[in-house]
Amino acid sequence: MEAEKIKSILMDIKKGKLDIETGLTKLKDLPFEDLSYAKIDHHRGLRQGYPEVIYCEGKSIEHIKGIVKKMLERNSNILATRANKEVYEALKDTTEDIEYNEMARIIMIRKNEIKKSKSKILVVTGGTSDIPVAEEAAITAEFLGNTVEKLYDVGVAGIHRLLSHRKNLDEANVIIVVAGMEGALASVVGGLVDKPVIAVPTSVGYGANFNGLAALLAMLNSCASGVSVVNINNGFGAGYFASTIIKQIDKIK
Amino acid sequence: MEAEKIKSILMDIKKGKLDIETGLTKLKDLPFEDLSYAKIDHHRGLRQGYPEVIYCEGKSIEHIKGIVKKMLERNSNILATRANKEVYEALKDTTEDIEYNEMARIIMIRKNEIKKSKSKILVVTGGTSDIPVAEEAAITAEFLGNTVEKLYDVGVAGIHRLLSHRKNLDEANVIIVVAGMEGALASVVGGLVDKPVIAVPTSVGYGANFNGLAALLAMLNSCASGVSVVNINNGFGAGYFASTIIKQIDKIK
Amino acid sequence: MEAEKIKSILMDIKKGKLDIETGLTKLKDLPFEDLSYAKIDHHRGLRQGYPEVIYCEGKSIEHIKGIVKKMLERNSNILATRANKEVYEALKDTTEDIEYNEMARIIMIRKNEIKKSKSKILVVTGGTSDIPVAEEAAITAEFLGNTVEKLYDVGVAGIHRLLSHRKNLDEANVIIVVAGMEGALASVVGGLVDKPVIAVPTSVGYGANFNGLAALLAMLNSCASGVSVVNINNGFGAGYFASTIIKQIDKIK
Amino acid sequence: MEAEKIKSILMDIKKGKLDIETGLTKLKDLPFEDLSYAKIDHHRGLRQGYPEVIYCEGKSIEHIKGIVKKMLERNSNILATRANKEVYEALKDTTEDIEYNEMARIIMIRKNEIKKSKSKILVVTGGTSDIPVAEEAAITAEFLGNTVEKLYDVGVAGIHRLLSHRKNLDEANVIIVVAGMEGALASVVGGLVDKPVIAVPTSVGYGANFNGLAALLAMLNSCASGVSVVNINNGFGAGYFASTIIKQIDKIK
Amino acid sequence: MEAEKIKSILMDIKKGKLDIETGLTKLKDLPFEDLSYAKIDHHRGLRQGYPEVIYCEGKSIEHIKGIVKKMLERNSNILATRANKEVYEALKDTTEDIEYNEMARIIMIRKNEIKKSKSKILVVTGGTSDIPVAEEAAITAEFLGNTVEKLYDVGVAGIHRLLSHRKNLDEANVIIVVAGMEGALASVVGGLVDKPVIAVPTSVGYGANFNGLAALLAMLNSCASGVSVVNINNGFGAGYFASTIIKQIDKIK
Amino acid sequence: MEAEKIKSILMDIKKGKLDIETGLTKLKDLPFEDLSYAKIDHHRGLRQGYPEVIYCEGKSIEHIKGIVKKMLERNSNILATRANKEVYEALKDTTEDIEYNEMARIIMIRKNEIKKSKSKILVVTGGTSDIPVAEEAAITAEFLGNTVEKLYDVGVAGIHRLLSHRKNLDEANVIIVVAGMEGALASVVGGLVDKPVIAVPTSVGYGANFNGLAALLAMLNSCASGVSVVNINNGFGAGYFASTIIKQIDKIK
Amino acid sequence: MEAEKIKSILMDIKKGKLDIETGLTKLKDLPFEDLSYAKIDHHRGLRQGYPEVIYCEGKSIEHIKGIVKKMLERNSNILATRANKEVYEALKDTTEDIEYNEMARIIMIRKNEIKKSKSKILVVTGGTSDIPVAEEAAITAEFLGNTVEKLYDVGVAGIHRLLSHRKNLDEANVIIVVAGMEGALASVVGGLVDKPVIAVPTSVGYGANFNGLAALLAMLNSCASGVSVVNINNGFGAGYFASTIIKQIDKIK
Amino acid sequence: MEAEKIKSILMDIKKGKLDIETGLTKLKDLPFEDLSYAKIDHHRGLRQGYPEVIYCEGKSIEHIKGIVKKMLERNSNILATRANKEVYEALKDTTEDIEYNEMARIIMIRKNEIKKSKSKILVVTGGTSDIPVAEEAAITAEFLGNTVEKLYDVGVAGIHRLLSHRKNLDEANVIIVVAGMEGALASVVGGLVDKPVIAVPTSVGYGANFNGLAALLAMLNSCASGVSVVNINNGFGAGYFASTIIKQIDKIK
Repeated sequence: MEAEKIKSILMDIKKGKLDIETGLTKLKDLPFEDLSYAKIDHHRGLRQGYPEVIYCEGKSIEHIKGIVKKMLERNSNILATRANKEVYEALKDTTEDIEYNEMARIIMIRKNEIKKSKSKILVVTGGTSDIPVAEEAAITAEFLGNTVEKLYDVGVAGIHRLLSHRKNLDEANVIIVVAGMEGALASVVGGLVDKPVIAVPTSVGYGANFNGLAALLAMLNSCASGVSVVNINNGFGAGYFASTIIKQIDKIK
Repeated sequence: MEAEKIKSILMDIKKGKLDIETGLTKLKDLPFEDLSYAKIDHHRGLRQGYPEVIYCEGKSIEHIKGIVKKMLERNSNILATRANKEVYEALKDTTEDIEYNEMARIIMIRKNEIKKSKSKILVVTGGTSDIPVAEEAAITAEFLGNTVEKLYDVGVAGIHRLLSHRKNLDEANVIIVVAGMEGALASVVGGLVDKPVIAVPTSVGYGANFNGLAALLAMLNSCASGVSVVNINNGFGAGYFASTIIKQIDKIK
Repeated sequence: MEAEKIKSILMDIKKGKLDIETGLTKLKDLPFEDLSYAKIDHHRGLRQGYPEVIYCEGKSIEHIKGIVKKMLERNSNILATRANKEVYEALKDTTEDIEYNEMARIIMIRKNEIKKSKSKILVVTGGTSDIPVAEEAAITAEFLGNTVEKLYDVGVAGIHRLLSHRKNLDEANVIIVVAGMEGALASVVGGLVDKPVIAVPTSVGYGANFNGLAALLAMLNSCASGVSVVNINNGFGAGYFASTIIKQIDKIK
Repeated sequence: MEAEKIKSILMDIKKGKLDIETGLTKLKDLPFEDLSYAKIDHHRGLRQGYPEVIYCEGKSIEHIKGIVKKMLERNSNILATRANKEVYEALKDTTEDIEYNEMARIIMIRKNEIKKSKSKILVVTGGTSDIPVAEEAAITAEFLGNTVEKLYDVGVAGIHRLLSHRKNLDEANVIIVVAGMEGALASVVGGLVDKPVIAVPTSVGYGANFNGLAALLAMLNSCASGVSVVNINNGFGAGYFASTIIKQIDKIK
Repeated sequence: MEAEKIKSILMDIKKGKLDIETGLTKLKDLPFEDLSYAKIDHHRGLRQGYPEVIYCEGKSIEHIKGIVKKMLERNSNILATRANKEVYEALKDTTEDIEYNEMARIIMIRKNEIKKSKSKILVVTGGTSDIPVAEEAAITAEFLGNTVEKLYDVGVAGIHRLLSHRKNLDEANVIIVVAGMEGALASVVGGLVDKPVIAVPTSVGYGANFNGLAALLAMLNSCASGVSVVNINNGFGAGYFASTIIKQIDKIK
Repeated sequence: MEAEKIKSILMDIKKGKLDIETGLTKLKDLPFEDLSYAKIDHHRGLRQGYPEVIYCEGKSIEHIKGIVKKMLERNSNILATRANKEVYEALKDTTEDIEYNEMARIIMIRKNEIKKSKSKILVVTGGTSDIPVAEEAAITAEFLGNTVEKLYDVGVAGIHRLLSHRKNLDEANVIIVVAGMEGALASVVGGLVDKPVIAVPTSVGYGANFNGLAALLAMLNSCASGVSVVNINNGFGAGYFASTIIKQIDKIK
Repeated sequence: MEAEKIKSILMDIKKGKLDIETGLTKLKDLPFEDLSYAKIDHHRGLRQGYPEVIYCEGKSIEHIKGIVKKMLERNSNILATRANKEVYEALKDTTEDIEYNEMARIIMIRKNEIKKSKSKILVVTGGTSDIPVAEEAAITAEFLGNTVEKLYDVGVAGIHRLLSHRKNLDEANVIIVVAGMEGALASVVGGLVDKPVIAVPTSVGYGANFNGLAALLAMLNSCASGVSVVNINNGFGAGYFASTIIKQIDKIK
Repeated sequence: MEAEKIKSILMDIKKGKLDIETGLTKLKDLPFEDLSYAKIDHHRGLRQGYPEVIYCEGKSIEHIKGIVKKMLERNSNILATRANKEVYEALKDTTEDIEYNEMARIIMIRKNEIKKSKSKILVVTGGTSDIPVAEEAAITAEFLGNTVEKLYDVGVAGIHRLLSHRKNLDEANVIIVVAGMEGALASVVGGLVDKPVIAVPTSVGYGANFNGLAALLAMLNSCASGVSVVNINNGFGAGYFASTIIKQIDKIK
């Protein structure tokens, strides 16, 4: 597609519709906007087929507000992650299509309808304490147009809870496993299915858990083969990665 | 499917074809063979749709040989990873359909034809030193029935090398990025495409690289969103995980 | 026992008392309750012979409350660990048989009498600062039906304090050693007795203690042989593990 | 018992059978022998009820030989761990009751009959590569007078292999779980039984396994409660610790 | 220069202008002032050609105030880094030439005009959250007499944002790259230019980022060659180091 | 001395002054008091020749108060370290001989005169921020009867500040070096003198300082030979260790 | 310059000298050669003004040979780092302008004269054991056209050795400090000069040195301000980085 | 003393015996010799009162030989540590007063008689495997003129072995405790005595010992107060540090 655009610019130059200096500028003109503190990458939507995403942690409220406003001018759908309540309060009057999920710390702004894929993503957790991260994954995946199912609190300390839900595992196209402590659930699920398992270590636990390091290392060393891993507590990353898989499935269909 | 099997056993009991004790045993009888030092899981093929895999590191040559022989009785395709030359020497006369790739340290035994998917997996490396791990990924994926393309030595120190291969990136369904040192390539590729990127950190590098830890952490913290990670030097895991994605794509088709 | 249950289901099917579909469902029906955010595992009591346990850290008060209510319907004894005062405040009117130990951060709900074993568990600490963790261990063990004795502040900096209590060491069946800083007490106790020593590293200390890592590593590397280790500050785990040993002793009697 | 000994010395002094200086010396005279480079603790047998144990790693062959000879003078049973073949070669002509297990790297010298307990220790491994460590545990436990059963290669990647051996789990008094990679097996076993589970992380694995650290952390953070942990690859420690439990069981009987 | 000073002292002694004891003292008399809790090194200005710098973190407000007052007696320019608002409040009435940048947590006191170099330092950030550290670098460099340009939010997840600013990269003499998460930007910039790139890892990120460790290791392992690294979040250090380079450039001119 | 005591007990038994049971008890009776939560080791004073020391961190105020009261009954000098203001408030009315140093977080209770040694301990710091730890060391050493001199803020970034105080270094018998950041001061001082240098790493610094780990490792790896190290921020430990050296010096005199 | 090239292509298209397809191709045609296992980046020379560099570690001898041959076709100067003797043996007959420095493990191929800058780089080491890394830095810098001076074995344990060479420090434009153990030399040098100090931690040392980690952390935390750091043992990186600084100096002249 | 030298130089200048330029040079002339790869610091002997020491690890045999020869010209006593047999072979014909201790890897060259102090250093080890490090400490201390006593294999797993040697502990002026595994011995010894205890962690152990890290952390966190620590396996450092203490004692006498 980019080649196409360059070709058309070259065509215009050849035809004399465009002088060389302008052509040169055009070739360099990439579709992002410059707020000095942020380069909003509207092109990313085109390039990657997704809504705009803002990672709020570490950004000042002013900066977040400025970015959202600029995005709204283009009428984009927006997903703001790691957004605490204060951020939501600051944004909630900017537009009426705004919604906040406090547990997942996510703000959603829907300006355009989101088409739903029929392929299915299953989000599984080891315990109740892992739910906030799981919800971040689930909401992200839903916002990106996926059908999401949830199966919470089926950790390996009571393996029958998981085994009695084989059907849910079997029906999914992609499974996201969210677990803290020793993160063993990823390996057990990975051993039961023949589909992509995305493991999300959480910082649930204490002591030699080292804020999720134990679960992270366990998942990276899973003895089951179809398992890959995202960062500790990175529900968003798991939901997003699962979406890229579903997109490939849907593209082919 | 398992429900089906249980159903048919229950049916037989009801009809009197099967007495209760035998039925009980059957319900417990799962298809693996017991070599005392190894439980060969022939069922895994059924359950996961893949060939038998042996991870050779840490196993004695006798054990490996015993496992391979048992598998050959069932006429399975076999993939033996992390197999040094000594292992190959010990196995090469067991069957004629055996092949060894020394760089990737993989032994392949093909007893059945492998159907090729048309979906494409692209394996990319940062440098020339990452090739052994990349080859492990590529060979694994091919053995599992995938079409694999390779793009080696396109690390970020000369970003134009990667950018000039946009077409390869665009045509793939799944991309495996193999990189050591700072592992930045995963983020750059992840930012350029809208498809699953599987990052494989390698132990290429020295000093504060800490045998691949630097690349691992970098990849887990990728600022690009569609990236997930497997263990350091785990080419096999990446190839396998990519295969599970392709299987979902092909299933839908 | 599970085999027994399956057998009786099969029997009923054979006799025509049960149709196949229902039988199938029964075989899959495992005794846990689904609150969507939690799968309460009432069966665990049967399976493991213990009360229900809730690990409160990271769970919302609503979730904890919901879980406790469901458990109370079954009239279970409940042990809620890592429960801060706020959790207790929220629960204290749910039932009258509730008790809170603030130092150990444990809530106990006793609906059924707890039979006491005569075998003895001794809980030993290196210092006064280790007492909260020791109390978590002691209360857990008592709630699980054990006789617990305590010997606090006998760390190795004044070895005679420990040596003058040889009798306490000699009379116990299991010893729990709770120590922070360099955790040397576990090794010294382990060298003095011929019985299971369960070491609990605590995060007491500072600097290169790294929140209990120093004691953890020391205990894992104990030069005395009969020592095993649980997670940092995991008083509950030590109390629980000690109980499993006592249960084996009592079973045999 | 020590009190008894002191009492009898005091008695002798009172009766004039012993002068004060000699009494003082006797009180200080503890039963170990001094080889200058080693203090052989013959008393440990009495104090802990076990054979003499030599940890060979890091000791010179001369030193090991010297220690063994001194022990043989007392006709002790001897267990020499981490003994490579060279050590065995140096010792094998010292006595005829010597035996070497190369896989477990253990030398056994049996001078006295070992009484067998009827209580049972089950040793379980995740994979075939974990067997050397498991054998160290099993042989140690057997040498210390226990009945040991083995269940190898039942890792969580094929959970049905474990589930079909529920009976073995149910019949044991103590279970030793030996697993590398992500060490998830300890949690799964811990969730299935109500008895002491001793977890032994192994260094089997690579990359972010960090020589067993991944499995170690996973086991310390097990979400199942009756699990305690020994050092990485410490089969001896697990076998020994299991023995102390069995001794308590047998003592009560 | 120091040699000169010693020479002149020796001269004075020779000429009898100075007795030996005084000469000895003079030789030892170095130009710093002693506040007991601080040795103010006025000489550093001479020795290193820069203003006085105070690192405020961990110093009591009284100490900071005392140090500033002593410096003001010498009419020095002062840069106080890691200064929170409370420090500024305490200092702001000490002199009128004081200015506070809250985002960068820097207090500047300008008593003398600062000559501006024409050589250029470019400060680049990966994201908006990295700006506070970048500002610390930029303000430091400006205060030390440099011309600073900024290019913020051009991280590798949208590589075209950076590529479209090649001109800024080309015009700079030194580039400071400030990035958190995986820190890949340093490598990409380093691969595009032939000038010194100073990488500043930031603690922006979470989970396996380990407060900036991921970015730090990545930058140390950069596959691009002209990259050196300062401490995590050390904007001041980067600005200062860049200044030493510019000083060499200007000296030669 | 202990031998003496045992001898006299034995003598009494021989003479019939003491019956055997009482003698046995006496032999076991060691001089510490049991508060159940603490075993106060009055004997330590005798055994080690020092005042009572309470490490306050992690102890409840009640426990601290109880311990102090018991100690006061014996009229001991007391040093309470890591005591925050709240602890002091709770204790200040217990006795009039109490004093609090807030910067060093130390409470001193002087019931007996402390004899001063003439040997000298010099406490040196790298920066002003290291002073609290240095004060903890200095006050501890003084309370233990030593003459202490201080030399603060002489870090290696301005090496002449240290070099101009050679005389202070030369006159001390023991030098305590307190430094954070890269902790280089210990090596430089160690290279200048031929006396014991006790290095105290502090957590002053940020980023890759990892709360004092950088300084700790640097000091452990000092290229200067007469340097030993105590825990991070452990001013008390350094002061105490220095005292044991001075005691040896004074003993000989 | 790139803009210039694009402009001229556009011009040709406009003038009809170039058809659009070819123009498109030209725009994408970047100057690297593809050996499938390596993309040789001849453009890097242009883009960065330096010779070709091959990092040999982890590359097969065949690959290295292939790369060198391709480079020789372009008559480039070549620097091959981390080249062991075996690599040199394989290459030495490829061209006559080849030279090997075994201590620094560097192969140099000089096809074109290298112009020498008059600006000076000083390479300093803490000890004799650091010399191999220092030589890697020195040779790299010389090969890149710089004047290099060396000052070896002037570590801080004997600070006068360094102080007596103040003149060398004063005359250099850039200083490279190579030190292992505690790496304190970087801070001391950094405190003495007002010019860029590039610190290279080495793995010289043992124990808690952790293969250079101690020196690395120390250097990153240097209390002296003009210090930046490269990877452990990365002499090449330091020499290269120093060169980029000299190039800026020379450019301005 | 240095002041004295400067004074005499100034005197000579005053008297005209010395012209200024020469005086200046003299003031800068410090007593070390320059071998280009090593600056031999003969002054260190004077400055620190000890023999010359060469740390051999990482130095080439040529360099070591060169250094030794230069030192021999001055007739110094020489201690070469971490010297493997190859080094000794290369040196043994250089002088006849050479001796090699293989276990401790130390070469001693005695050119001058060493006066023996009567103060006593006691070297204690936990196990037999710690002896090589202990011997390095003992030999170093003896070579530096101390009386050394040894007490080996008295680790805490059999605490009575240590307790029965109270007299040895009581008679020493300084105690060096060498221990691996969990390093608990340092704490126990530290609690028994009132004198300086220098702890040397060794890398004896395995698994979570992490090459001595466990013992190192344990010793740094010792709950006994008079303990300081040197680097892992640093027997030399402990022996040297102990010597500096003895020198202070002897100086006073």
